[in-house]
Amino acid sequence: MAIYDQYKEKDGKPKGQEAENLAEKNQPQALGRQSIHFKQPVYLIESASVVGTKEGKGPLGDLFDVVLTDDLNGCENWEDAESTLQRDAIYTTLQKADFRSENVRYLFAGDLLGQSIASTFGIMTFEIPLFGLYGACSTCGLSLSLASMTIAGGFADYVMCVTSSHFASAEKEFRYPLEYGNQRPLSASWTVTGSAAFLLSNKKKEGARAVITGITSGKIVDYGLKDSMNMGACMAPAAADVIYRHMRDFSTKPEEYDRIITGDLGLVGQTALLDLLRKKGIDISGRHMDCGIEIFDDKTQDTHAGGSGCGCAAAVLSAYILRKLEEGTWKKVLFVPTGALLSKVSFNEGKTVPGIAHAVVIEGV
Amino acid sequence: MAIYDQYKEKDGKPKGQEAENLAEKNQPQALGRQSIHFKQPVYLIESASVVGTKEGKGPLGDLFDVVLTDDLNGCENWEDAESTLQRDAIYTTLQKADFRSENVRYLFAGDLLGQSIASTFGIMTFEIPLFGLYGACSTCGLSLSLASMTIAGGFADYVMCVTSSHFASAEKEFRYPLEYGNQRPLSASWTVTGSAAFLLSNKKKEGARAVITGITSGKIVDYGLKDSMNMGACMAPAAADVIYRHMRDFSTKPEEYDRIITGDLGLVGQTALLDLLRKKGIDISGRHMDCGIEIFDDKTQDTHAGGSGCGCAAAVLSAYILRKLEEGTWKKVLFVPTGALLSKVSFNEGKTVPGIAHAVVIEGV
Repeated sequence: MAIYDQYKEKDGKPKGQEAENLAEKNQPQALGRQSIHFKQPVYLIESASVVGTKEGKGPLGDLFDVVLTDDLNGCENWEDAESTLQRDAIYTTLQKADFRSENVRYLFAGDLLGQSIASTFGIMTFEIPLFGLYGACSTCGLSLSLASMTIAGGFADYVMCVTSSHFASAEKEFRYPLEYGNQRPLSASWTVTGSAAFLLSNKKKEGARAVITGITSGKIVDYGLKDSMNMGACMAPAAADVIYRHMRDFSTKPEEYDRIITGDLGLVGQTALLDLLRKKGIDISGRHMDCGIEIFDDKTQDTHAGGSGCGCAAAVLSAYILRKLEEGTWKKVLFVPTGALLSKVSFNEGKTVPGIAHAVVIEGV
Repeated sequence: MAIYDQYKEKDGKPKGQEAENLAEKNQPQALGRQSIHFKQPVYLIESASVVGTKEGKGPLGDLFDVVLTDDLNGCENWEDAESTLQRDAIYTTLQKADFRSENVRYLFAGDLLGQSIASTFGIMTFEIPLFGLYGACSTCGLSLSLASMTIAGGFADYVMCVTSSHFASAEKEFRYPLEYGNQRPLSASWTVTGSAAFLLSNKKKEGARAVITGITSGKIVDYGLKDSMNMGACMAPAAADVIYRHMRDFSTKPEEYDRIITGDLGLVGQTALLDLLRKKGIDISGRHMDCGIEIFDDKTQDTHAGGSGCGCAAAVLSAYILRKLEEGTWKKVLFVPTGALLSKVSFNEGKTVPGIAHAVVIEGV
């Protein structure tokens, strides 16, 4: 049975679990099978991005808040370096917002490494109650989703999200230590060394960067691919599934979004995504953007399929996408980071590489 | 500065971020620094536990829904076996509840393995929108917390939580493959082979097992311990911190709970926990219980400090704690699974082993 068949209804209407409207008309509304509409928007007050040297030399280099001059950031190992990215992203966000960590009620954090050690040691110092997450490279969307639900549900006034990746820690975690001189096919992506943190609130502060008005949460989608050197193709079905479901749940069309932005499908995955959606009658070719394609210049930086990693989507969201919304160049985007759910153990044991995606509707204030 | 000093106020009142009461008096209420009170309770409709052979021979052996006769459960590797535990826990829960997976709006899942591969391949088949989590052995509390917020916030009518651990996959992930014949000190715990899944709802169904009335979410607590063979001591400070904060936020005393239940502090961690709380003027010695101590009989099973792992707290909650609440033997418990935030990489790089704990108030219907 094709993935999409389960959503077809005999009467043509989407099947769903539409929660009854609560008494207050501004209450968030569950839509369709897997979406939520925040009638009272969630304010994305502030954010900050911290990236490595290669990212600083890329097309978006001037837009990031902090660019390292040393990818070890003065640490003794790559994992500690990645922790400092998260620590600095949170710290910089709080500084920019003139906000104290004691007033952040919850923190949503995760990264790519086994047992999320980059997050643990990076965020520990802030002593914020923590909801630890794992969504692979979809973590930025996953964290913004849960954080928005927390705000909209009335559980907090201020929460933060943070995620990161690091090229060297990821190579060591998923492929080989750098010293092995591993070869990379053209379909391979380059894990971004980067982190971004986001401060969300139910209070509109002067200068809020954007608003989150809805989310569509993905399920695991597995088309049976096994090539860990072609993550884009592995993840494209999950992105297609959640974009399709999003537009059904919200009854929207591609032209209503200035951009539909994936995290790190890269050049190969982009082709797959457009094809898959076209088969469902959805054409996003005019307005699809991929953070992994934007963050590096393959011609000069030899990054093959593009950037990847939790930090890719997060850093580009903070530095580039939110800026476009603030400037008014864009009014509304669908931000859809995707994750490839594998480990070196699952890969070596011959498992497939399933994908997952989490979509967030972000609009100008 | 002692961990607890930050909570002292000059006027003696707890510092907090008490959200304004919303118009509807049944709306969940944020309490103190890191707690939520669900005035409209969240119903724990049904649950199921699946455990391995050793657990089946332990003191609670007769209480679990499914006991394996083969710890590989017919699979070719330990990770796949662990995945089947999650799959079967979810399936059995749905069967017991006479409920279809298509009507479960969200799934909250995680496990101990790098990149949560046990969860991914176990739950994929149900095609439920997924919020992937990482909380180490606190995952059961973490997932019940976020799931409860999702229900109470009006985002779903039915959600599920699942988590697991497996002795062999954990040994391979954190210590050594079994063939190495690793030695275990008396402070070491035995990772439980087990999984449990929980179905939560805002609708009271005939025969709901219990209700969740509140949560206190923990922050990372690090007392600088580095002994990964003494997880109990590593995690006890986090448990003490969240129990202390819980009682401050809710203005309760130990005697108001029939049991205060940690996940896997074990015998060593229990001593540390009681000491730490006693220093804060809180005595839980008469009513503390630890799932790791309950699930095995060290005298006959040689499990040293006790059971551990995500599956430990989850399976004992489903099979034993909820049963006590259903029978009316207990009226109200504080369920506080704890996690040790380390990986073999962080350990080998000389990092400490920080802890985290998530507390859930569970009461009889």
